[in-house]
This record gives sequence, C-alpha cells and structure tokens, in this order.
Amino acid sequence: MTTVLKLGGSLITEKERAETLDGAALDAAANAVAAAVGDGTDLALVHGAGSFGHHYAEKHGVTVEEGTADAGAALEIHGSMTTLNRFVLSRLHDRGVGALPVHPLSAGARDAGATLDLSLSSARTMLGEGVVPVSHGDVIAHEGQGTTVVSGDEIVVDWATGLNADRVGLCSTVDGVYDGAGDVIDRIDDFDSVADALNGSDATDVTGGMAGKVRTLLGLDAPAFVFGCDDLSAFLAGDRVGTRID
Amino acid sequence: MTTVLKLGGSLITEKERAETLDGAALDAAANAVAAAVGDGTDLALVHGAGSFGHHYAEKHGVTVEEGTADAGAALEIHGSMTTLNRFVLSRLHDRGVGALPVHPLSAGARDAGATLDLSLSSARTMLGEGVVPVSHGDVIAHEGQGTTVVSGDEIVVDWATGLNADRVGLCSTVDGVYDGAGDVIDRIDDFDSVADALNGSDATDVTGGMAGKVRTLLGLDAPAFVFGCDDLSAFLAGDRVGTRID
Repeated sequence: MTTVLKLGGSLITEKERAETLDGAALDAAANAVAAAVGDGTDLALVHGAGSFGHHYAEKHGVTVEEGTADAGAALEIHGSMTTLNRFVLSRLHDRGVGALPVHPLSAGARDAGATLDLSLSSARTMLGEGVVPVSHGDVIAHEGQGTTVVSGDEIVVDWATGLNADRVGLCSTVDGVYDGAGDVIDRIDDFDSVADALNGSDATDVTGGMAGKVRTLLGLDAPAFVFGCDDLSAFLAGDRVGTRID
Repeated sequence: MTTVLKLGGSLITEKERAETLDGAALDAAANAVAAAVGDGTDLALVHGAGSFGHHYAEKHGVTVEEGTADAGAALEIHGSMTTLNRFVLSRLHDRGVGALPVHPLSAGARDAGATLDLSLSSARTMLGEGVVPVSHGDVIAHEGQGTTVVSGDEIVVDWATGLNADRVGLCSTVDGVYDGAGDVIDRIDDFDSVADALNGSDATDVTGGMAGKVRTLLGLDAPAFVFGCDDLSAFLAGDRVGTRID
C-alpha cells in the first residue's frame, strides 16, 4: 500500500514572508507522518515551495513555462528549495522517520516539448528499503529554455503513476475543493461538472491553480484526496477526507 | 567535443582534516575550468569526497559494498558532499561559469546486483543548455543494502559512456600512473602489462585504488588521462598529459 502525499508550500511555510517556515504546521504534519510510517505505510512525500522557492522564482521571473539561461538564478531558486527540504527531512529524522531527499534538478529534465523525464529509480529503491523519499518543487533543466520551474504537483503526478500509488493526498490550507457557494465538494469524477465553480481559482498559483490540479488528478489511476491539515492523520489512516477525485 | 573531468577529493580538500577545503587548489582548478568553458569546451565535472564524504563514510562504516539501513547516517554523508559540492559550484559561479548540481542520491540507485542505474537526463540537458553539470561521490539507495557509497570514479565512467565523452580527465595529487620505479607511465593500453606495478597501490582508497581505476578506464571508448593539477589547463586545451589510458 503506497501513498504519495504532498504537503502544500502554503501549509508548511509563512507564504507572506520570504524563507520563513511555519514550524508549528510542519511539526504537526511530521507527527502525523511519523505515526503513519510507524504503522507500516509506504510513504513518498513531496512538498511545495511556499515562501522559499516562489520568492526566488518570482524574483528571477522563472515559471513552469518561462525559463532562465542564468544558472545563478536557477541555483538560487534550487538552493532555497533544498534549504526547505532539509527542514522537512530534519523534522522527520527527529521523529525517527528514515527519510532522504530526491531533488528533481538532479533526477531529470524537460525535453523541447516540455515533457518531464524524471528518474524514479531513487524514489522507488528508497521505498523498497523502508526509506521515505522526500521531493519538492524545483527548477529543472529544460531543452531550449535553460531551466524552468517544475511544480510539486507535477512530481506528485509523476510519482503517483510511476510508483504505482494506491492513494494520493494533497494536504494544504484548504479543506478540499470548494464549489461556487464555498462548500467543500465531496467527490469529483468529471471535470465539466465542476468547471464553472473552479474557474475563478485558476489565477491563485503560478504553478497552476485548483482547476489544473483537479484536471490532472482526474487522470490518475489512484484516487486523490484534497484536504486540510486537520484531516492529515485521518487520510494517512485510510479514511476518506476532504474532496475525493477519481 | 565533450570532456568529463574529475577533480580528485584529495586535490580540492585537506584530506587529513575533516571537512576542510583546500581553497587554493580549488581556486586554481576553477580558474582552469573557467578558461576552458570560456573557450567553448562542453564540460561535465565530477569531484571526489576527500575529507568531506570520506570522514562520515568511515564514521558510519559505509563503503561501495557495505551499506547502511540508517537513513540518518546516509543523510550525514550526503550532506557533507552537498556542502563540498556547493563550494565547488560557488567558485565556478564566481568566475562566470554557469554550473548546476547533479546529486547521485537523487539521480539513481543500485539494484540487488549492485548495478548502478543513474539517470543522465539532467546532466545531458544541462550540457545542451551550456551549463556545466557538477556531480560527486555520494551515497545512493541500494536494493537490499539500504544505501551504499557511489564513488566519483563510478560517476565519471557512467557519464563518459552515457554523455558520449570525447575525452576523460582525472586530475588529482599524482602526476599520472606510476610504474614500479616511481616514474609516470606514458601510456597504458593493456592491464596485464602494468598489473605488477599497480598492485601495491590498491589499498590506498576505500573506493578502489589506482589498479581499479586503470582497469575501468581501459574499458571506456574515450581516451582517459590521469594527471596532476599543474597539467589541468594543458589537458583542457587538448594536450596529452600525464598517463594516457585507452
């Protein structure tokens, strides 16, 4: 039973202040993860960028589509993400969770058509050895573009497919996918039925808003759940939480 | 014209003192690399562990063959290598060389037969974008062993083959491969003819001595050169230096 879990960047960092951790939120998430791993869950973890990577990506004007030929800019963005990644690893190790980093910049690239080629060898072998691979949004070499951003959500989708995940969880600061009236939608199995409600949320994140997330998650074999931090332990225990997308 | 260059760990660090850079040696190497990249050489760089990785690998008893199931030990070894890697990157960026890290722990793994599966996607794409990929000896997930050491020399061999290198250089604190009388051998094209002379050097390095290096380099398509730091600029300019192995 393999679970791919993403901890949103807005959850584990203070998004308004550059390179500032939300230590209490990260501690709470690490507690839930440690309990689940202790109970035998094979977990692959991805975290977002929050006020670490986004700050530098905006500074240098780099997005999923707009690249930079400046390796110094790319290294600054990457460096802020590895810093955040080490905080996450450290909180897990403090709780006895064996976890190791998987940095997308080292693990793959995009071709000229922007298709991601990410090696799963490290994450898959770590999982088999009882180690939690911990990846994140990053910059990545991109044929013809220098480097572009790769979002944590893209890593989640790649891992969910390539690691044959049984369940996918996106834990963030929202309790699920909201409908037009602001209520959490229980289940989404078809994009068109929720397209109108989601339209307004598309501009909230440079790496692609809720509409894009839902569309991508609908394409996965595994069921995906979008939920808030209060539901993390329940999700890891196998419960149905937030919005189920499949 | 692609060149894979390894800077030996004993060259760029003070091997007797834990986590101590040989700043002058690294500066000199970075100057030579910057000049060559400025002249249009497509360069892929690998560095050894020296007093960074080796110190922690010995502390935890981890080698190429002896693994550890302790992710904390692996992370300590890996962390010391990423620290050294950032020093190398920083010296290159200071000289206007666009360079980005490729960490083996993220890029691949070993299977149960200890065969290395390393993604070349990141390094290949960086090279195509005019960026110098900079890799290093590291720990790597290993099926059935937890994590083991992957040596810088293994990365060199993998990259030389996978990146279709035209030339391979191993720059270290020795001026070449020495014969029994202590003189640099001009050329080696057959292992048996130098086996006696090399036998005594096998115990000098946990990641595999000069005899192992020579044997492996003989298997490459590209000519390989083993030389000292004084010959680095000449090597990068295309000259024949030290011992030629092919």
